[in-house]
Amino acid sequence: MSSLWLISQHVRSMSEPQLSMLWSLAADIQEELRQGAAKPYRDVIKVCWGDLHSGRLKPLTFVRQVLAACFYPQLLESSKLPPDVKRRAEWLLERCEGGSVGSYTLTAGIGDVVQRISEFIRRRDGGVPSRPENIFITSGSQRALTKVLKVLVSSEASPRAGVLVPVPGHSVTMSSAVAQGAVTVPYFLCEEEGWTLKVEELQRALDSAQGVCSPLALYVINPGNPAGLVQSRESMQEVVRFVAEKKLFLLADEVYQDYVHGGSSRFVSYKRVVAEMEAPLSDSVQLASFHSASKGTMGECGLRAGFVELLNVDSAVMEFVYKLFSTDSCAAVSGQVALDVMSCPPRPGDPSYPRYRQETQHIRSTLAHNVKRAQEVLDRLPGLSCQPAAGGAFLFPRVQLPPKALRRAQEAGIEPDTFYCMKLLEEAGVLVSPGCDFGQKEGTHHFRVSLLVCSDVMEELLRRVSSFQTDFMKEFS
Amino acid sequence: MSSLWLISQHVRSMSEPQLSMLWSLAADIQEELRQGAAKPYRDVIKVCWGDLHSGRLKPLTFVRQVLAACFYPQLLESSKLPPDVKRRAEWLLERCEGGSVGSYTLTAGIGDVVQRISEFIRRRDGGVPSRPENIFITSGSQRALTKVLKVLVSSEASPRAGVLVPVPGHSVTMSSAVAQGAVTVPYFLCEEEGWTLKVEELQRALDSAQGVCSPLALYVINPGNPAGLVQSRESMQEVVRFVAEKKLFLLADEVYQDYVHGGSSRFVSYKRVVAEMEAPLSDSVQLASFHSASKGTMGECGLRAGFVELLNVDSAVMEFVYKLFSTDSCAAVSGQVALDVMSCPPRPGDPSYPRYRQETQHIRSTLAHNVKRAQEVLDRLPGLSCQPAAGGAFLFPRVQLPPKALRRAQEAGIEPDTFYCMKLLEEAGVLVSPGCDFGQKEGTHHFRVSLLVCSDVMEELLRRVSSFQTDFMKEFS
Repeated sequence: MSSLWLISQHVRSMSEPQLSMLWSLAADIQEELRQGAAKPYRDVIKVCWGDLHSGRLKPLTFVRQVLAACFYPQLLESSKLPPDVKRRAEWLLERCEGGSVGSYTLTAGIGDVVQRISEFIRRRDGGVPSRPENIFITSGSQRALTKVLKVLVSSEASPRAGVLVPVPGHSVTMSSAVAQGAVTVPYFLCEEEGWTLKVEELQRALDSAQGVCSPLALYVINPGNPAGLVQSRESMQEVVRFVAEKKLFLLADEVYQDYVHGGSSRFVSYKRVVAEMEAPLSDSVQLASFHSASKGTMGECGLRAGFVELLNVDSAVMEFVYKLFSTDSCAAVSGQVALDVMSCPPRPGDPSYPRYRQETQHIRSTLAHNVKRAQEVLDRLPGLSCQPAAGGAFLFPRVQLPPKALRRAQEAGIEPDTFYCMKLLEEAGVLVSPGCDFGQKEGTHHFRVSLLVCSDVMEELLRRVSSFQTDFMKEFS
Repeated sequence: MSSLWLISQHVRSMSEPQLSMLWSLAADIQEELRQGAAKPYRDVIKVCWGDLHSGRLKPLTFVRQVLAACFYPQLLESSKLPPDVKRRAEWLLERCEGGSVGSYTLTAGIGDVVQRISEFIRRRDGGVPSRPENIFITSGSQRALTKVLKVLVSSEASPRAGVLVPVPGHSVTMSSAVAQGAVTVPYFLCEEEGWTLKVEELQRALDSAQGVCSPLALYVINPGNPAGLVQSRESMQEVVRFVAEKKLFLLADEVYQDYVHGGSSRFVSYKRVVAEMEAPLSDSVQLASFHSASKGTMGECGLRAGFVELLNVDSAVMEFVYKLFSTDSCAAVSGQVALDVMSCPPRPGDPSYPRYRQETQHIRSTLAHNVKRAQEVLDRLPGLSCQPAAGGAFLFPRVQLPPKALRRAQEAGIEPDTFYCMKLLEEAGVLVSPGCDFGQKEGTHHFRVSLLVCSDVMEELLRRVSSFQTDFMKEFS
């Protein structure tokens, strides 16, 4: 029996990321290499995701020691683990039912870990109060965002609900919104001015929604993904006034808050910006802010833990938020452990502090070096231009595809930038994400490259891309 | 600004479990005890969930050693870990990007782990083929079920989509179905005959849906939750014929497959039953079967990992399944590690085998003892009757509430069985789940009690419930 009739219309309208196809191709190439195939490279460098450990940057020892001791408490008797690791593991195990990280926790997470996250937020935001009951730990920040969207978006609404999303932006979020039955309304970041977000453009996007959908939320990513803008407080204040005036719920994806690459830029949270504005804005703008253990110097993507903090959300809405979050069980306890360490890392004087400091500084300096070096190299290559990034984990260079390359892509029936990425993968063994997965202005082409790799990999990557790009431009000019 | 308008109608129609309120009350009582309050008990026994470790049954050493070594690979150099633990950890780390469990894996899980799950299924099902590409690892089986429901249920459909659900049944599933926009159509299990599932009742339920919704799926739980029926192959074949005839998608929740308490009952998977039936049934009935690392002798609820295997699903539908599953990142890698061990445990001859065997046998025999002992004690108490359970992690005794108790509940404005559970919690320090959270025939009252506790806790639990029940019946008769 055929069962296409079964499929939800909203799920049908989701688009498939082009990266899936490239990922499969990369797997095939890796298999060929394993079998001894002769290629101009010995391995595939995967810089399509922002994944610190996959980029050969090492996990933080303190985090891993605490996790090992939580999973296998016999290690608490070992003399090899520092005393602050043991203390932390004991503290956490006392807060697990039956003293095991294998037990369920509360849906929102272990109470005292949520409390520590709340204290972390308060410190981060210069003392702005944070209430633990507004914080929910989830299996990654993306999961929290989907949940919040699910509460907000009435899939059965007419006209349909709209969510303003940045272009370029995080494709999974847009997919999630569409799967909930929302219409995504694109607003374009201004590439020429370093991918800035302009309120006039938000207004244009809102106007464009007229007659199409009823916009109820604005989604922003700061620091940016794929383009690494770090918003200024002034720009954020303009955004806050805009959402207040238009009665939009503000969804602030702030998972890259720990990646700001020096210079004059500084991360300020939307929570802090809202809270420090004048009344009634400070106590009326409804905000959900997302963070994650997958990013920062910790980079524990595989642990799947993030959280959302809600601000100024009606108690009546909060009731439904609780209800919906409780249909999921808790987030993996290993991830909750990581969030605890993220919120409350070793401090000066603790036995693990010197090593922790050295490891985190190494990651920060590697990243700061990578962003500068990659931007300079890529921006100088023929047919490429690359805006600098003040923050985030990526660069999003623009590719000037020669007409011959555009024709070839068309003949192959694939997107032009997917064609480019496929050639880069096949000929240079470098896997990046095509710009079309993130959205881009019509007629422009880009790719996203992760900077979360160790220096050796970055140098090899830049060598390969440089050589490929020169050949590519020759071949297709 | 008020924002109730924001909330999705489907989310509004979800009902809140009564357990939430009881859980908060339990937390208050625990706090009072900590502060030295005088009560007739020293602690709260929480048997409201099926959680092995919270019930003081110990984690399996092999699983925990492998996890510790994966998180902190320096342990691979220690002489304290058995060689098969080290081999397993090395095997797993080789399959993680960058050699770290902190990296993302494929959405469906680490390829070779999925392969092992597929081999486990094939062994379990007496050689019936299982294809890795039909298996998706997720953050718990419940997550997989929600995803499958999301593909199936068109929230915008008219008439609305219907899902047949057992009563009593797993409340979170019903909540998820409602949140997706489906109508749940209850079918009643026959308490008097040991909570059996009857096809006549499925037919009655289907008829009752006429004019209300358009049923597209049947959800079964085998072994049962909250009532521990283990279906016979004959009964399952009848169900398969029914779904084939009515063109329903079969959702088989089989997470308790490892809990069958001796006697003549034996777990057979729906996958196997379908595959071994005659054509065209064997290659046309569409099935999703769910399993989890949270149950079995492993009981690693806190790791959040489960999987779904799909059978006979149209390739066109599969495409959307892939798409929807890929909006989530992978499941936590710690959970994937646990699933690997579940699929491929130590074997005779392996250094860890004797200990593994002893630990798993201890859990099995404790559970088999608990189910027998608890059923006998509870069934004999005044005002209680309790069907035996052939499988699963729970008993679901029926409470005959005296009219005076019913009146008191009504005066307090709460469900009668919530009133009963509240008294049990306050007076005896035992937290169970009220029957109304699972659904029950009108005018009947039940509670669900977990059997996943060590023997000491079980004895103390039965002492408390016995004494409470006698007093309760006296007080309210």
